[in-house]
Amino acid sequence: MGLVVQKYGGSSVADAEGIKRVARRIVDTKKAGHQVVVVVSAMGDTTDELIDLAEQVSPIPAGREFDMLLTAGERISMALLAMAIKNLGHEAQSFTGSQAGVITDSVHNKARIIDVTPGRIRTALDEGNIAIVAGFQGVSQDKKDITTLGRGGSDTTAVALAAALDAEVCEIYTDVDGVFTADPRVVKKARKMDWIAFEDMLELASSGSKVLLHRCVEYARRYNIPIHVRSSFSGLPGTWVSNEPPQGDRPMEQAIISGVSHDTSEAKITVVGVPDKPGEAATIFRAIADAEINIDMVVQNVSAAATGLTDISFTLPKTEGHKAMEALTRAQSVIAFDSLRYDDQIGKISLVGAGMKTNPGVTATFFEALSNAGVNIELISTSEIRISVVTRVDDVKPAVQAVHSAFGLDSDSDEAVVYGGTGR
Amino acid sequence: MGLVVQKYGGSSVADAEGIKRVARRIVDTKKAGHQVVVVVSAMGDTTDELIDLAEQVSPIPAGREFDMLLTAGERISMALLAMAIKNLGHEAQSFTGSQAGVITDSVHNKARIIDVTPGRIRTALDEGNIAIVAGFQGVSQDKKDITTLGRGGSDTTAVALAAALDAEVCEIYTDVDGVFTADPRVVKKARKMDWIAFEDMLELASSGSKVLLHRCVEYARRYNIPIHVRSSFSGLPGTWVSNEPPQGDRPMEQAIISGVSHDTSEAKITVVGVPDKPGEAATIFRAIADAEINIDMVVQNVSAAATGLTDISFTLPKTEGHKAMEALTRAQSVIAFDSLRYDDQIGKISLVGAGMKTNPGVTATFFEALSNAGVNIELISTSEIRISVVTRVDDVKPAVQAVHSAFGLDSDSDEAVVYGGTGR
Repeated sequence: MGLVVQKYGGSSVADAEGIKRVARRIVDTKKAGHQVVVVVSAMGDTTDELIDLAEQVSPIPAGREFDMLLTAGERISMALLAMAIKNLGHEAQSFTGSQAGVITDSVHNKARIIDVTPGRIRTALDEGNIAIVAGFQGVSQDKKDITTLGRGGSDTTAVALAAALDAEVCEIYTDVDGVFTADPRVVKKARKMDWIAFEDMLELASSGSKVLLHRCVEYARRYNIPIHVRSSFSGLPGTWVSNEPPQGDRPMEQAIISGVSHDTSEAKITVVGVPDKPGEAATIFRAIADAEINIDMVVQNVSAAATGLTDISFTLPKTEGHKAMEALTRAQSVIAFDSLRYDDQIGKISLVGAGMKTNPGVTATFFEALSNAGVNIELISTSEIRISVVTRVDDVKPAVQAVHSAFGLDSDSDEAVVYGGTGR
Repeated sequence: MGLVVQKYGGSSVADAEGIKRVARRIVDTKKAGHQVVVVVSAMGDTTDELIDLAEQVSPIPAGREFDMLLTAGERISMALLAMAIKNLGHEAQSFTGSQAGVITDSVHNKARIIDVTPGRIRTALDEGNIAIVAGFQGVSQDKKDITTLGRGGSDTTAVALAAALDAEVCEIYTDVDGVFTADPRVVKKARKMDWIAFEDMLELASSGSKVLLHRCVEYARRYNIPIHVRSSFSGLPGTWVSNEPPQGDRPMEQAIISGVSHDTSEAKITVVGVPDKPGEAATIFRAIADAEINIDMVVQNVSAAATGLTDISFTLPKTEGHKAMEALTRAQSVIAFDSLRYDDQIGKISLVGAGMKTNPGVTATFFEALSNAGVNIELISTSEIRISVVTRVDDVKPAVQAVHSAFGLDSDSDEAVVYGGTGR
């Protein structure tokens, strides 16, 4: 029996009852013979309440102090969780990110982990303790200031500790049963996967799936730490995310297609009438980058021969739309495009599966399904194991349902569609 | 212009408005040319809310984890205060007790400061920052665990930092205007003192005055750090607590009597019919000490010649009355007393003033005032600069008022009573 790292999110420890329920689950794992390290997020709405307080005293909270403030949230939940475990008759000690040896760079509010030195955690485990660690936080290497890891930080803390402690698995407990073939709120027949490969999970995470963030999966893949995503409420086995399907008594199928994801949080900007000559696209995206805006899909089609002008479209988070339009407008004197079009009534549907590398016909089936559902495609973008299209936002739901069905992913389908040959 | 340490209690930073008001006061001090270190308590009811959460998950919260939990409170207030100061255009950094170098022993929930190594604070000040430090907390020397200092801990943090940084004054901001000659809720004509000596303040603190705790004053006296107790709401000069009256343009009078304090939080236990022979009192108080009960006054009068028996009375916090009665009842077989009497309808009135050492007649005036007010005295206990009596609890208010008047302390009195000669 090896070491297990478990991570519990804010919804799992939202109140005293939740904390006691989680404590029982942790103790069960310990009783089964494992050493247990637990990473915990702030309780329920704590972080939002702290942010609200910060905005009341200062319109632009400062990085260092904002991190000091937010880390109070995990401090509360981890101490309470340790108390609840001790109340069940087991030894537990809580540790801040700094005490747990989570060393980061100095970029406040979105620090990156650069080392993990879990000496105190190892000692606590060797002394028979369950170790409770604050997620989402660390200490900067140079200034010894408290830092936070940004969105999805607690999952990343858990995977990083699992890697540093050579854990056999990193269990991510959440409020859903695992990773599904599509969002169950959109596709009623979506199926929970027993297993998904790291690379497919990375594509799902970057194309709209919210279960795991890209950053956490990337970290797990780099250190080859299997993740087990599961519900803290049901206790049922969830979804394993790893390089290879786990051996054992559970039958694992590797479908060609892992799942269908969607994302309605993006907007589309089209730069109309760009001279089709070297350097124009670079100038456009340098202007965007200088405004510190992250973009997603970029599409340019061949230019119209008559004019020598082309259109360049890209998608980006709606929240950054205004900033991007301002940056491009300022750059118009340099880039000499005709006009800008902004459209926030779009959605993105992505089909993900490593199997599409070696199975022709996936693209055809995908577009046929969209066509049969009457969905018009506005943009197309592909990676080796993903096809994404942009549609009207109202078409997203029927499009996801149609594609999910077409690839045999529905829960009442006998088996997933299989293609012969190679390539798509 | 030297270094000033300011301490703000929970009522001063109860909400965002309070934090902004305190931030302005701090910035004013900085603008006046001082280096400023601020010690801050948790906001308003935060600590009580955290204790409530702890009790929900575990009936007996564990020491180490309880400290980890409670220290989240100051973390929140100090970060918000730093943000509010930065928002006013001044540089500020917040520091936990551990970061500020507050080193304690390992007694969780009531740790004692054993060293202060404020290297980071000094650096922050030298770089032009206002340093905000979490009150009430430290880090244990041996295990590097987070500790809390117990009741009045933030005041003690402030004085300890002031000593370590060689501050010119430790300002304790609170919700009253200073130290008064009596509790203004009981004596309408109570006067705010401009100055009080450490030794008088120590006696007032240990006999019922709540403005400063004994521990904090003792620390300040040991390191000769002047304390200035004042209101964070009014901004008026408050009361200086130091060895000597401050020099300067403010006239300072040193009255014979500093003030009248009272305490209604105690109960009285009388052990009736104790054999008047060596060792009996020791056995009684060993039984009390073994039950970890703190006692206050102890009174034994001469024994009745006929019986060879005496009565021993002592006072103690009402909250420990039940435990003390149990401990004594268990010890009855050894001590062979007749019976126990428990009385929680008592109050204590104390007259404090270093002047009573050299002024005869103080005791007589004190008892005459009580007699004229029709107050019956049940116990008497004295120190070199204090006389305390125990009365019925209902007599406390008229007794304090009568004594306050008799010694010329009322605010409409021309001057304090002066006695000639030496000794009381």
